[in-house]
Amino acid sequence: MPPLKQHFRILNTDPGSAARLGLLSTVHGEVHTPAFMPVGTQGTVKALTPDTVKSLGAEIILCNTYHLYLRPGHRLIESLGGLHRFMNWPGPILTDSGGFQVYSLGKLRKVTREGVIFQSHIDGSRHKITPELAIEIQEALNTDIMMCLDECTPWPAGFQEAESSLSLTLSWAERSRKARTNSSSQALYGIIQGGMYLELRRRAVEAITAMDFDGYALGGVSVGEPKPLMEQIVSETAPLLPEDRPHYLMGVGTPEDIVRAVDCGIDLFDCVMPTRCARHGLLFTNAEKVVIKNARYREDNGPLDSDCDCYTCRNFSRAYLRHLYVAGEILAMTLNTLHNIRYYMRLMEQIRSAIGRGQYAAFKTRFLKDRRMSEA
Amino acid sequence: MPPLKQHFRILNTDPGSAARLGLLSTVHGEVHTPAFMPVGTQGTVKALTPDTVKSLGAEIILCNTYHLYLRPGHRLIESLGGLHRFMNWPGPILTDSGGFQVYSLGKLRKVTREGVIFQSHIDGSRHKITPELAIEIQEALNTDIMMCLDECTPWPAGFQEAESSLSLTLSWAERSRKARTNSSSQALYGIIQGGMYLELRRRAVEAITAMDFDGYALGGVSVGEPKPLMEQIVSETAPLLPEDRPHYLMGVGTPEDIVRAVDCGIDLFDCVMPTRCARHGLLFTNAEKVVIKNARYREDNGPLDSDCDCYTCRNFSRAYLRHLYVAGEILAMTLNTLHNIRYYMRLMEQIRSAIGRGQYAAFKTRFLKDRRMSEA
Ligand SMILES: [Zn+2]
Ligand SMILES: [Zn+2]
Repeated sequence: MPPLKQHFRILNTDPGSAARLGLLSTVHGEVHTPAFMPVGTQGTVKALTPDTVKSLGAEIILCNTYHLYLRPGHRLIESLGGLHRFMNWPGPILTDSGGFQVYSLGKLRKVTREGVIFQSHIDGSRHKITPELAIEIQEALNTDIMMCLDECTPWPAGFQEAESSLSLTLSWAERSRKARTNSSSQALYGIIQGGMYLELRRRAVEAITAMDFDGYALGGVSVGEPKPLMEQIVSETAPLLPEDRPHYLMGVGTPEDIVRAVDCGIDLFDCVMPTRCARHGLLFTNAEKVVIKNARYREDNGPLDSDCDCYTCRNFSRAYLRHLYVAGEILAMTLNTLHNIRYYMRLMEQIRSAIGRGQYAAFKTRFLKDRRMSEA
Repeated sequence: MPPLKQHFRILNTDPGSAARLGLLSTVHGEVHTPAFMPVGTQGTVKALTPDTVKSLGAEIILCNTYHLYLRPGHRLIESLGGLHRFMNWPGPILTDSGGFQVYSLGKLRKVTREGVIFQSHIDGSRHKITPELAIEIQEALNTDIMMCLDECTPWPAGFQEAESSLSLTLSWAERSRKARTNSSSQALYGIIQGGMYLELRRRAVEAITAMDFDGYALGGVSVGEPKPLMEQIVSETAPLLPEDRPHYLMGVGTPEDIVRAVDCGIDLFDCVMPTRCARHGLLFTNAEKVVIKNARYREDNGPLDSDCDCYTCRNFSRAYLRHLYVAGEILAMTLNTLHNIRYYMRLMEQIRSAIGRGQYAAFKTRFLKDRRMSEA
């Protein structure tokens, strides 16, 4: 039995694909899936107020356990009333387990059966994160969806390396499950690893789903592997997951990645791409990729994206956005991020609408064709 | 005859001081004075959207001619419909003449009777700004209030240096007046220089007011001189200005400076202090000066300023603001700036309310006493 009753409900399935329309329920509100979670690493979606994030259509955000554990500390956040109150985001929050950040940011990382020892990227201090501590932190933060500590298998990895890494992830998943003390208001998701080996992925699904988590995540993709390999892993692994639980593809991805993964039955996404690209002046539109510092926009009095309904596109010209970016103005970060997040949110709205109409396969085909044309 | 009819109207005068309640009229809207103009140097009040600036109570902003001339260029802004449209600020805009920025930012500055030759702080390119060009730029930007190019007399300066600098400013003022081609929708203010010499200041007032500008500014204060000296210059010079024109004290200042200057009949203020301090984590409250990175705020769950009605104070704790600042988050700049600007706007509201009630002298006395106590 999953500890959270009614955590996920399927509202509609698409006849021509594995795409599904769903509703995630948490004590902080509902999330219409497929959903994209803007990333709020340090307790803020960079450059946006939480009111703005909400106004863009985001129903759930992701925060990074690793960062909040190091600064300002989970106990501090707990004593101030939890993460929702701390950052003034009243809606659902998912926290990762910290595993991926230890892997990508921590120095002198050392993995043992017990946990991960690493040095803080902020001040070099030494820390050990165990599966039990990762749960303790996430319970202190009081987030709506917690993730099990896992080891992100690097790419490339040999079969034996991936297998032994998976074995660690499986034992940590079991320990995470046992460490959990709050099963009334916080969901816990298990993570499927296994590198790029379908046999290991199948084994992972079998073992992790046997532990009966509230949701299941595919981890260890988008770590540098070629795109077709990622697509194969997703398309072969997602169908093995229990239909009645939410499926979360971690750290993915481009609009194309998302549209393809929804076709395989993925419900949840997160990625730093829209926010990070925005801060580098790379802006998403269906028609073209806008590199805003480009001289061709110097005298361009048109909106960034004439299809977009966001504050940025309704009120400012490309010439002004270019000026702000070139001049190093903070407002560039805000207006660019606002647009990119809205672009992702509109994409998810279009995806949900297509599934609701039972026409997801056609939507996907047209979307991918249009994108290819715009890049030709 | 001032070229702009009904540019300024006095609504009320305070019986116990020279303070006045006024209304500035421009084609882009009205401004209730005494007013503080947030500084939008490069065509943006740093870290805030124009919608936010407006929601904080700002009715007029200041932009810097020097910066916009260098980047993106006044002709570009003109071709895109003028500065209001470019930056999406529909209300009144005042532009300085660029003189002060040339003085403080330009390299290899060389002043001649003709104008100022300088190198751009951005790319080292050579430029010459003349009084005529300063008007041309401001007309291209199509701002509501233009300023004459002046030479900011440095401090300290000997009498002869100040006198010869003033003579330049006076001849430039006359040339500015003649250069102006649009006197139907753009006001032009003359600037009173004269260093710290009351005799020169009196001479400046006489000569500049004889040229009949739409408004008069006191320049060349807050350039490093001791506070009592600035106060003396303001209190002795402001009463000499024509009562029926707006009085603008350039680049000033702290809340105390503003409260004192209003007492002398000053109507308009601008200063980078609230925005720049905000970006350095220095936050204004009546009770105390908050240095938000201070460890004492680490666990402080209270609002930044319990007297403040701004978004920051209504929604976030000092502990969160400290976290954002220490973590280097962009949102820190936004939330801090938002609060500091709102602090200044509330101060101006209180000032106008006190004048409206005919009790400005009492307000001033109490305000200054409270500030001294909070700093004891
Ligand atoms: Zn947009
Ligand atoms: Zn405030």
